[in-house]
Amino acid sequence: MTLFASPTDFLAALSSLPAADAGAIAAAAARQAQLTKPAGSLGRLEEIALFMAGWSGREIPALDHLQGIVFAGNHGIAARGVSAYPPEVTAQMVGNFRQGGAAINALARACGAHLTIVPLDLHRPTQDITQAPAMSEEECLAALNAGACAVDPRADLLFVGEMGIGNTPAAALCAQAFGGGGAEWAGRGTGLDAPGVARKVAVVDEALALHGADIRDPFEALRRLGGREIAAMAGAIVAARAMRIPVLLDGFIACASIAPIAAAEPDITAHCMAAHCSAEGGHARLLAHLGLDPLLHLAMRLGEGSGAAVAAQLVRSALAAHADMATFAQAQVAGPQLAGAL
Amino acid sequence: MTLFASPTDFLAALSSLPAADAGAIAAAAARQAQLTKPAGSLGRLEEIALFMAGWSGREIPALDHLQGIVFAGNHGIAARGVSAYPPEVTAQMVGNFRQGGAAINALARACGAHLTIVPLDLHRPTQDITQAPAMSEEECLAALNAGACAVDPRADLLFVGEMGIGNTPAAALCAQAFGGGGAEWAGRGTGLDAPGVARKVAVVDEALALHGADIRDPFEALRRLGGREIAAMAGAIVAARAMRIPVLLDGFIACASIAPIAAAEPDITAHCMAAHCSAEGGHARLLAHLGLDPLLHLAMRLGEGSGAAVAAQLVRSALAAHADMATFAQAQVAGPQLAGAL
Repeated sequence: MTLFASPTDFLAALSSLPAADAGAIAAAAARQAQLTKPAGSLGRLEEIALFMAGWSGREIPALDHLQGIVFAGNHGIAARGVSAYPPEVTAQMVGNFRQGGAAINALARACGAHLTIVPLDLHRPTQDITQAPAMSEEECLAALNAGACAVDPRADLLFVGEMGIGNTPAAALCAQAFGGGGAEWAGRGTGLDAPGVARKVAVVDEALALHGADIRDPFEALRRLGGREIAAMAGAIVAARAMRIPVLLDGFIACASIAPIAAAEPDITAHCMAAHCSAEGGHARLLAHLGLDPLLHLAMRLGEGSGAAVAAQLVRSALAAHADMATFAQAQVAGPQLAGAL
Repeated sequence: MTLFASPTDFLAALSSLPAADAGAIAAAAARQAQLTKPAGSLGRLEEIALFMAGWSGREIPALDHLQGIVFAGNHGIAARGVSAYPPEVTAQMVGNFRQGGAAINALARACGAHLTIVPLDLHRPTQDITQAPAMSEEECLAALNAGACAVDPRADLLFVGEMGIGNTPAAALCAQAFGGGGAEWAGRGTGLDAPGVARKVAVVDEALALHGADIRDPFEALRRLGGREIAAMAGAIVAARAMRIPVLLDGFIACASIAPIAAAEPDITAHCMAAHCSAEGGHARLLAHLGLDPLLHLAMRLGEGSGAAVAAQLVRSALAAHADMATFAQAQVAGPQLAGAL
C-alpha cells in the first residue's frame, strides 16, 4: 500500500515514477507480428495490448481484476450556483451507487469491473475556493491517502471516476496548470444554463486571483483549488503508478485531477489511457495538454467513471485478440507478400 | 426467411423497407428521462438504446441473440496485383475462422456474439471486372440469397463482415454510387504499396468505363462491380431490415455493399449503425455519403467484422445502462433544478 506521510512524501513519489517494462512490450510486439492479420490492422487495439503488456510486465497481459473506484465529495463552491443540481444529490447518488442503480453500476457490470465507492466527508464540504483554500494540509493529505488506499493491489487495470456536484474546482485546476482563465475552462457541466456558466467563469477567475501566487507545487494546487474527490483520484492514480497498475481516466474531472501533476511532471500520464473525450468543453483541450488521445468520442458527460467503464470493454477486446488469436504458423495461413512482386 | 426470387424481387424489397417502431422509441425516451443521470449525459449510449428500442419494438431492448456473419469470396481481379496477399489466403482464413483462431473469433467471444462463417464458392473467383460483369444474374442472386439465408431470424442485432483478398470491387461500387473515380476511392487495403494502389486506381477506372452505362439499378451494380461476399452482405442487410433486425456495419467493404442501394434508396441505412471508421482512406467519405456517424475511430483496417464486434460492446453497455439503472423516484434522488433559481 502506497501512503503519503506528508506533502513532501507525495511530491517525492512524483519524482520517482516507475517505467513500463520495455522487454514485455517488445515481446508483445513480436507476438502481434505473428498473429493472423495484416500488420497493424487492429489499429489502436494493438496499442492497447502493448500498453497493457508494458504495465503488467507480461507478453500476454490478462484482465482478471478490473477495478473501478468512484470518489464522492462536496464543494463549498456549490453554494455559488455553479451546478444544475443541489449538493444533497451527492449523498443521494452515493446511496444509489451502493444500491446498484446508477449508470456506473450498470456499466461496471457490463464490463466486468469490481466497483469501489468512496464517499469523502460529504457532510463537510470543502471551503469556497474564492474565499480560502479548499482544504487544510491535513485534509488534502487525508484525501490523497483515501485515494491511494482504495486501490486494490491485485488490480490489473484501474479506472477512476467521481461524483460531486460542482466541477468548478476542476476547471480552476486546469487553468492554473495550463494557463487560460475561467472562460477557457468552465463548461456546462451536467446541464448548466448560460447564467450558470457565467457564474462559474467568475468563480474560477476569483479563485485563480486569490491562490495563484501561492501555488508552487501540485500538492498546493490540489489543496487550494481541488476537492476531496479530486485529490483522492490524484492519490489513486499516483499510487497505481507506484504499483505499476495502468489507469483508464474517465472524464474532465478525473483528467483534471492530474493536471497540476502533469504540468510539473508530464510523465505521470505514461500509465494512463484517456477513456473518452466528453462533451464538456474543456476536456478536449485538457487531453491535448496531457498528451492523451482518447479511445472514445461518445459525447458522454456524466462522470462516475462511466466513460472509463465503456472504454474498459475496448481493453477487453484488445486483450482477447492479443491472447487468443492464432499465429500464421499455427493456422497455416500465408503471410503478406509484396504487391510489387505479383 | 426472406429470399429474393429474382432481381425484380430484390429491387421490390428495397422499395418497401419497414420503419422502426416510433411508439417504442418514445417509450424508451420517456424512460431515459427518468433514469438517475442528467438528461442526455450518456451521449451516444442513449441514442443507441433508442435505436435498439425502435427496431426491437420494445421500451427496454435486450441483446440475447447477437449474431455476426463473415462472408468470404474470391475476386478475379486479385490476379491484377491489387492486394498485398495472395488469393489462397481467403480459404486459409476461412479455415482459421472455423478453428477459432482469427481476430473475429477472439472479438466475437469477447462481445458474446454467435459467429456464422459463410464461404461462397471460393474455388470459383468472380470474373475480372475490367473484362466482364463480376457475376451472372444467377450467381449474383445466389449470393444475395446466401446472405439473406444466413441471418438468424431470432437475432436482436446482426453484424456483417467479410474476408476476400482484393477490396477493389468495393471501391468501384462506391465510385459508381457516389461519383468520383478510382483515385478517390481506392486505398491501401490491408497493406498495399504505392504501385499496388496505382494498379487498383486503374482497375477501378477501367471497370467503371466498361460497366458504367449499363448500371441502372443496385442489382446490376452489385452484379457487375461487386463480388459474392459483397452481394451476400447486401442480401443479409436487406433481409435483416425485412425482419426488423438492426445491423452494425463493419468496415469499408461492408459499408460499400449497400452503397448502390443507398444511392437509390437512402432509407436503407435507417436500421444500420456504422461500427467504426476504418483507416481505409475511402471509408470516412463513404460514411458521410451514407449519412452514418461511426461509433468508433480506432484506426482498424482488418475487415472480418472485427470493428463491428468491438462496437457491439458499446451496444451492450448502452443497453445495460438503459435497462438496469434506477429512476430518480426509485433511488430517491433529486432531479435537476434550474441553476438560475439557486
